[in-house]
Amino acid sequence: MLYERVAIIGMGHIGASFALAGKAAGLLGHVVGVARSPETLATAIDIGAADATTHEATEAVGDADLVYLAVPVRAMRPVLAQIAAHLTAECLVTDAGSTKVGICEAAARALGDEVAFIGGHPMAGSEKHGPASASAELFEGTTYLLCPGRAGEAELARLQRVVCGIGARPLIVEPERHDQILALSSHLAHISSAALCLAVGGAEPDELVRFAAGGLRDTTRIAASDVEMWRDILAENAENVLPAARQLRDVTGDFITAIEREDWDKVARLLAEAKAFRDRLYPDTETD
Amino acid sequence: MLYERVAIIGMGHIGASFALAGKAAGLLGHVVGVARSPETLATAIDIGAADATTHEATEAVGDADLVYLAVPVRAMRPVLAQIAAHLTAECLVTDAGSTKVGICEAAARALGDEVAFIGGHPMAGSEKHGPASASAELFEGTTYLLCPGRAGEAELARLQRVVCGIGARPLIVEPERHDQILALSSHLAHISSAALCLAVGGAEPDELVRFAAGGLRDTTRIAASDVEMWRDILAENAENVLPAARQLRDVTGDFITAIEREDWDKVARLLAEAKAFRDRLYPDTETD
Repeated sequence: MLYERVAIIGMGHIGASFALAGKAAGLLGHVVGVARSPETLATAIDIGAADATTHEATEAVGDADLVYLAVPVRAMRPVLAQIAAHLTAECLVTDAGSTKVGICEAAARALGDEVAFIGGHPMAGSEKHGPASASAELFEGTTYLLCPGRAGEAELARLQRVVCGIGARPLIVEPERHDQILALSSHLAHISSAALCLAVGGAEPDELVRFAAGGLRDTTRIAASDVEMWRDILAENAENVLPAARQLRDVTGDFITAIEREDWDKVARLLAEAKAFRDRLYPDTETD
Repeated sequence: MLYERVAIIGMGHIGASFALAGKAAGLLGHVVGVARSPETLATAIDIGAADATTHEATEAVGDADLVYLAVPVRAMRPVLAQIAAHLTAECLVTDAGSTKVGICEAAARALGDEVAFIGGHPMAGSEKHGPASASAELFEGTTYLLCPGRAGEAELARLQRVVCGIGARPLIVEPERHDQILALSSHLAHISSAALCLAVGGAEPDELVRFAAGGLRDTTRIAASDVEMWRDILAENAENVLPAARQLRDVTGDFITAIEREDWDKVARLLAEAKAFRDRLYPDTETD
């Protein structure tokens, strides 16, 4: 048992899965689940993700030695401000937000030097909704990014043991670097996927479906993700997303220009450069 | 047995898979495989995709009742011109190219009214290379597009029986409509996927890999496809690909403008419209 009394604020897919995984590994003790929706809280109890529940975050965190924030990115700041005065000095606060600079800064402001904070980002299916789809195996084999900031080595080591215990690989990264890289490794792909849907979506979808193979299915998959969540991630990380998105537009323009000029050598060079990158990124994937 | 003597020109992944599937279903008799590479021909014999082989297409087609063209799109015209004079009037010619207007026109010119031609496009993993990866199950559950043109009903019915026999669903479409729709359902996704790789690829790939989750993997998957094949498809279908690619660039620009203006309602509307389209296209897919 690494944390005896845990408060999980946000009992959605990630929060409930973290509780299930941590309990299954014997690393988390008594879990209080916090959410606004009574239905969410009832489900959290039903599936064994929470031992007790409340609508009041301030109540839940009072005697917690671990507070796990799994609310949407935009809700992190108000929740941190709300709970700060109710935390004990022994408590570690961590989060599961998809951006890190803004959240780590907000945590430093809200918690000061009194309470330790380690930013977290589990790179696991974060777009599903609600605890009903939660799974103790969600983090198995995934990367779990950690931004320890000013937290001590003992706090970091303990949280890392939990991360390993739920089957994930902890990876330490600075918040600034996190947001820069994630703009490219994740956020831009969402713009690309959504843009493809919008470019294609003017056509007759029902006819298109019959003529679509695996390429369109995979390339548009993440466009089905939660709208508000991704609006907020793009807003939080606009500084890094914008130059990446401009690059995407410019490279698309390079294709257009080359096709307009019937410069097929140039088209081949663009495709070859893209393929070389993809082959390096994922050497063993099949194409179709 | 629907075709007693079959010539398959191009013994790559698709050609060899068609032979294996048609033979397994008992619908194709003696298959002569044609390819330039002796290694390809040896493999075709080894795996049972061909009963005999030759480097000379003109030799193979002389007594064939079915000629199946599975060469790259750019090679269809010269092959059609080469074999035309060697075909019998009883022969049906079909192809497996990913574009249809140019190939069907070339076939009409080369074959005239003497020999029937039905354009084909099996929507199955066409980017793998060589007969070694061929499979009798490749077409199982896939759509097999057919452009019958001036071919008679009996010819069409017989080819459709083969398509059904190898497990695919035949779907009749006009060549012009085929190329219009495929520009949106397939070709644009290749530009989108390649452009994302190029936009992201400027960063340090080895670092990126450690921070990449399923989104980037799926969104870039088809960028690993064969370069020459896709250069030729984009060239063949430039007329339809260009307006689609311009639309993709403009929509990416809409995201950029909305983020620059911090117009998060607009970002949410773009994401929501994309999601609505994706949900309609593939109602049951998971996101992550």
